[in-house]
Amino acid sequence: MIRYLTAGESHGKALVGILEGMPAGAECSVDYINHHLWRRQQGYGRGGRMKIESDTVEILSGVRFGKTMGSPIALVIQNKDWENWTERMSLDSDGSEVEKITIPRPGHADFAGAVKYGFDDLRNVIDRASARETAMRVALCSIVRKFLENNGIFIGSHVLRIGTAGMKNRVKVDKMIKTFCHRSPLAAYTLAQEADKSDVRMLDKSAEAMAISEIKKVKKAGDTLGGIFEIIVSGVPIGLGSYVQYDRKLDGQLAQAVMSIQAIKGVEVGDGFENALKFGSQVHDEFALANGSIARKTNRAGGVEGSMSNGEIIVLRAAMKPIATLAKPLKAVDLATKKLVESRYERSDVCAVPAASVIGESVIAPVIANAFLEKYGGDSMAEISKRSKRN
Amino acid sequence: MIRYLTAGESHGKALVGILEGMPAGAECSVDYINHHLWRRQQGYGRGGRMKIESDTVEILSGVRFGKTMGSPIALVIQNKDWENWTERMSLDSDGSEVEKITIPRPGHADFAGAVKYGFDDLRNVIDRASARETAMRVALCSIVRKFLENNGIFIGSHVLRIGTAGMKNRVKVDKMIKTFCHRSPLAAYTLAQEADKSDVRMLDKSAEAMAISEIKKVKKAGDTLGGIFEIIVSGVPIGLGSYVQYDRKLDGQLAQAVMSIQAIKGVEVGDGFENALKFGSQVHDEFALANGSIARKTNRAGGVEGSMSNGEIIVLRAAMKPIATLAKPLKAVDLATKKLVESRYERSDVCAVPAASVIGESVIAPVIANAFLEKYGGDSMAEISKRSKRN
Amino acid sequence: MIRYLTAGESHGKALVGILEGMPAGAECSVDYINHHLWRRQQGYGRGGRMKIESDTVEILSGVRFGKTMGSPIALVIQNKDWENWTERMSLDSDGSEVEKITIPRPGHADFAGAVKYGFDDLRNVIDRASARETAMRVALCSIVRKFLENNGIFIGSHVLRIGTAGMKNRVKVDKMIKTFCHRSPLAAYTLAQEADKSDVRMLDKSAEAMAISEIKKVKKAGDTLGGIFEIIVSGVPIGLGSYVQYDRKLDGQLAQAVMSIQAIKGVEVGDGFENALKFGSQVHDEFALANGSIARKTNRAGGVEGSMSNGEIIVLRAAMKPIATLAKPLKAVDLATKKLVESRYERSDVCAVPAASVIGESVIAPVIANAFLEKYGGDSMAEISKRSKRN
Amino acid sequence: MIRYLTAGESHGKALVGILEGMPAGAECSVDYINHHLWRRQQGYGRGGRMKIESDTVEILSGVRFGKTMGSPIALVIQNKDWENWTERMSLDSDGSEVEKITIPRPGHADFAGAVKYGFDDLRNVIDRASARETAMRVALCSIVRKFLENNGIFIGSHVLRIGTAGMKNRVKVDKMIKTFCHRSPLAAYTLAQEADKSDVRMLDKSAEAMAISEIKKVKKAGDTLGGIFEIIVSGVPIGLGSYVQYDRKLDGQLAQAVMSIQAIKGVEVGDGFENALKFGSQVHDEFALANGSIARKTNRAGGVEGSMSNGEIIVLRAAMKPIATLAKPLKAVDLATKKLVESRYERSDVCAVPAASVIGESVIAPVIANAFLEKYGGDSMAEISKRSKRN
Repeated sequence: MIRYLTAGESHGKALVGILEGMPAGAECSVDYINHHLWRRQQGYGRGGRMKIESDTVEILSGVRFGKTMGSPIALVIQNKDWENWTERMSLDSDGSEVEKITIPRPGHADFAGAVKYGFDDLRNVIDRASARETAMRVALCSIVRKFLENNGIFIGSHVLRIGTAGMKNRVKVDKMIKTFCHRSPLAAYTLAQEADKSDVRMLDKSAEAMAISEIKKVKKAGDTLGGIFEIIVSGVPIGLGSYVQYDRKLDGQLAQAVMSIQAIKGVEVGDGFENALKFGSQVHDEFALANGSIARKTNRAGGVEGSMSNGEIIVLRAAMKPIATLAKPLKAVDLATKKLVESRYERSDVCAVPAASVIGESVIAPVIANAFLEKYGGDSMAEISKRSKRN
Repeated sequence: MIRYLTAGESHGKALVGILEGMPAGAECSVDYINHHLWRRQQGYGRGGRMKIESDTVEILSGVRFGKTMGSPIALVIQNKDWENWTERMSLDSDGSEVEKITIPRPGHADFAGAVKYGFDDLRNVIDRASARETAMRVALCSIVRKFLENNGIFIGSHVLRIGTAGMKNRVKVDKMIKTFCHRSPLAAYTLAQEADKSDVRMLDKSAEAMAISEIKKVKKAGDTLGGIFEIIVSGVPIGLGSYVQYDRKLDGQLAQAVMSIQAIKGVEVGDGFENALKFGSQVHDEFALANGSIARKTNRAGGVEGSMSNGEIIVLRAAMKPIATLAKPLKAVDLATKKLVESRYERSDVCAVPAASVIGESVIAPVIANAFLEKYGGDSMAEISKRSKRN
Repeated sequence: MIRYLTAGESHGKALVGILEGMPAGAECSVDYINHHLWRRQQGYGRGGRMKIESDTVEILSGVRFGKTMGSPIALVIQNKDWENWTERMSLDSDGSEVEKITIPRPGHADFAGAVKYGFDDLRNVIDRASARETAMRVALCSIVRKFLENNGIFIGSHVLRIGTAGMKNRVKVDKMIKTFCHRSPLAAYTLAQEADKSDVRMLDKSAEAMAISEIKKVKKAGDTLGGIFEIIVSGVPIGLGSYVQYDRKLDGQLAQAVMSIQAIKGVEVGDGFENALKFGSQVHDEFALANGSIARKTNRAGGVEGSMSNGEIIVLRAAMKPIATLAKPLKAVDLATKKLVESRYERSDVCAVPAASVIGESVIAPVIANAFLEKYGGDSMAEISKRSKRN
Repeated sequence: MIRYLTAGESHGKALVGILEGMPAGAECSVDYINHHLWRRQQGYGRGGRMKIESDTVEILSGVRFGKTMGSPIALVIQNKDWENWTERMSLDSDGSEVEKITIPRPGHADFAGAVKYGFDDLRNVIDRASARETAMRVALCSIVRKFLENNGIFIGSHVLRIGTAGMKNRVKVDKMIKTFCHRSPLAAYTLAQEADKSDVRMLDKSAEAMAISEIKKVKKAGDTLGGIFEIIVSGVPIGLGSYVQYDRKLDGQLAQAVMSIQAIKGVEVGDGFENALKFGSQVHDEFALANGSIARKTNRAGGVEGSMSNGEIIVLRAAMKPIATLAKPLKAVDLATKKLVESRYERSDVCAVPAASVIGESVIAPVIANAFLEKYGGDSMAEISKRSKRN
């Protein structure tokens, strides 16, 4: 079973991660990981941080001659900003000279985190709760993603909505997706490449233009934006996950993975919320025969039936709330003085939906890979690939 | 840590469950569990099964003199229908006389399950994938729910939509909820009691009438309905869950629990998908002072910030797809003959959203309880309650 | 991954267990399980309980037509003694009429359990801590054992020592073992069958006679005995377990499983403690060539190198302390009165080492099976067996 | 729950570790960790590596102003030898110039590891299976150890045997231990300090002299030694662990932790194997009254009854096999040529029992801490210490 832990504060020395349980003999390169780190840093509407930190990963263990060794893979991403924070984030000083942050920002972990851990300085919360942590998740999960790709499973994503901007015409979206998702295992890959060409990872040019103009407008107003993105997985064999026990359900595991991304507040599989309003006869994907083999004409279930992959493309959609750090301050209460004040501003993005879509692609990779390994088993790429080969 | 396993086929002898990790000295009674089993069986639109099986639980272990013993609690719910299935579900016959089911129903586990496990008889899948399993989940989780109640945490739910019927006016819904959710720990309990009075667990009478008429109409058409329900939790202390590692995030865990209910295809925390389309200034819940203590005027975050409980009422919404077994058949492929046929009908509900809302209440109880126990620890009710007392 | 939970008090209604994660299509019969339950109840030196409870299992789910269905398997073993305990173990009475047990027995869970859970009646501890629970562990694990057997992996055991009685001459023991363990996958099975013929599960007739006479003598003296038994596993493929992370080490997992049996206080792999006193050149198993393939002349490592199976027979040894309930009382302190008193006697065995050896065989089955499934994967017997076939 | 992962090859860039689940506000310093790393590197009989690598740790996250932040703690220990291995352990070269190791050493992971992962170069196995990995385990676990110490729980160890050298007279050993273990929570700490004064961590001067002379002799002969060490834990509250489910048993978890140390082949709790040969009346620890409170005169159970801590000092003993790398070669088979050859020599220790005893102290810290946190709960040191205070 693949598992991982991340560590690292936003303004600490570095982000660190360990990925455990990878089979031996899988391809692993710094370039591949860095490519996905780069993708995570793109997107119109990002703040100053993205310019400071062009993330690159260092592999400290678990890889030799370009291949995984079966042993745990440790990654480090240096925080280039660290040099400006050595005092405020000092490991061993007594911190008495450092100003405490005591005003929690609405929408952030600040308040609940301080209460939970008994902190009188919100910096302790802010620095770990920050979405900067996702850089390491993307890095670790990229190794798993490559493993999946080499077993014919591809993950991609695109942005549906940034605020109210986006393709309102769902039919048009579906058509565009279909163009890329031609039932080839590579569908998700092709789609992601297409989305990568857009500054907001949108497939539709007019929607893109609206989104960018919306971001510009909102930025000027000192406000922020969220949105909706879609993750798709192609090449998934039938029967990953299981219905037999609640915690083995693939959709449940995928939902946890996606919801565990900072700022994500909603997840649906296929046309989840839309289907809830329709009749059964409009929703369930009838079986068909295509050249003698079993097929479907529709995929409203988003590739998951009975909490298992059903052989169709897996489709997940996630709702991201607007960035919680606003230039235009919100009302807050100073925890030290118990007085009503204005919330602090800490350098931030205006919109990070494109980045979140890349993170979404990443975090589901271990879920898919574990279900895949449960079915095919094996300690090495050679062993696994032989078993999982599909035609 | 509380954990549990369920077992049992829909037409087997019985459903069985074991709940492990419950502190000692917590109240536990058959009546309390049966009440929630009864709630799960209500709702306009249920099929014949609900009349056959008025579920009652038997406690086989872990409870003495009305209190938990710290040891695992085993529950059994007999399947009253079992006597008609002894041959078809025989433990030890060779099954050669039993007709195989070979036509998978769209929207069900049938197809993917058969491929996964290599079955030539879909009965093996149908019987475990059935939502009948949720009866045991409700039973086990009710014990946890009672433990939470005795620690001041209450869970409730109501139905927002059945198909297109429901309160379109979100403002009105919120107002009604506010009526019941007056910042008392009992809010969720009061709300659930109100919802229980309705045949479709709706808080609004006119919406209820529309929903019932919709179900009638759809039933006549041989079709089915899904819907949207809302789970709320009141009395939750600040700081359950954590932002420090992806798998300890409360929202991720809640999403998994809710998505793991049969037929659920979408989950959101607070106004998840709606907030994604708004500006940050419209979404984040500003802090306020109420009698000198920290408060919020709004709860758009649904009680979760930074993946922790923030002291407000937790609000989750779930999208349920329409029942997948339709009287009016869909196209299917017979796996034995590889011919296009009509899907089988197996006795089923037309709409089960009200039941699903009760299941939703149940499955999140262990998630909340584990986060609660992580914070307060303890092996017995006495030990725990002393620590967790709030004013 | 295979996992399981047991439930049930010693004088409650029943023992209950759920086994989760079994592949589909594996053989499973009540007779096979009952046979191992019967083996667990044998042995010279058992108390009256063994005559009351001739354990038989009922399968409530997860098995159809003699094969596992992939879904969880629930087992129940009725406690025949329950009818005499309905009042004392009542689910819902207030217990006010029932006499509390307040004198903890040395060597038992009584004292620590009461302090931990805040009980004023030790019955709550006694009844769950009792080794009766192992009946359910044997039952559940027998299903896994059968799965292993059908994949060519066999588990057996025999008793080395009962108190001081036993084969002192280790060389002789090894020779006897070698007789049965002729490098065939069936070695462990053959050995267990031979041990089953003995009332104390010893392979040597003169040792057996000494052991039985020792038990007789000790029983008369109101005292009790422990001993040492050996578990062996044959047919294990090379490379189960792993060295890459501490919690994936096969020997660590095996040690936990064996140490988790009531009254077990020591575990060794191969000649663990003996080897610690020798030189490296006397301990490590040199490689050899046998008909061109890699072999070993010795197996002092007990089949485990680098925390992985190395293809040789796995040998584990466990030390069982003497039964802690003595007819001849020990000093104890009444928790209610805080006075020094004599410990209570509750019906018990004089020696249960033979039973423990059968339990030992059982509890390691899921450990081996999980390592096996990690290597071969698969959801059904057909899928797995094809992959794991060895020549 | 505290959990951790280690990563790093013996000749790779660095060892890396992440410790997750530590409460906030616990003391954590580089000096404290380095002290235990230093202790791990001591001991007469170590090889050249110990001189090359004077391990020091770098904390990359999770600690601020000398206190834990609740967030994961990442540690790095540089491998000073790495510069000599950049080619042989290259991340991205194709490795075609690097000589493959094909001769597995008896007693090592080499053979089984190569078969498991499908390697044709044993270097991939050797480098991760190496006991060098334990440096990181000691580092991570030291943070947990400090947390325990600040909650009044101390862990220590000493060496009982190196080969045949050691105190044969168990009575004398026990007396010496008693001198240090005067029922104070500090007992284990005091004992460890005393042992630290000895080059072989033995408490008895004459035994120490014998051990050192034995090591000298054996080294000259090109052979190696193992031995037996004892870990003790003082200040443990009553009722850690539980009897209610097999995997929650404290002794089982401790056994796994200790057995998971490289080269450990046996574990016992208290006088495990010795007690197996005695009568119950000689083994079980009678209760007594000391100044009106419950006490014991003996501690043969090693502080664990019913798989829970019983308030007495916890005593674990571990058997370590002789170092598997011998200067005097053993027979091996070249996996490339399938010819019988002599085993390779790779720089190694002659005896590492003293080091192993320090590792033993370390690896059980998270087991104790998790049982402790289950009982007392809490997110911060302040919260926890208040609850767990004992008199």
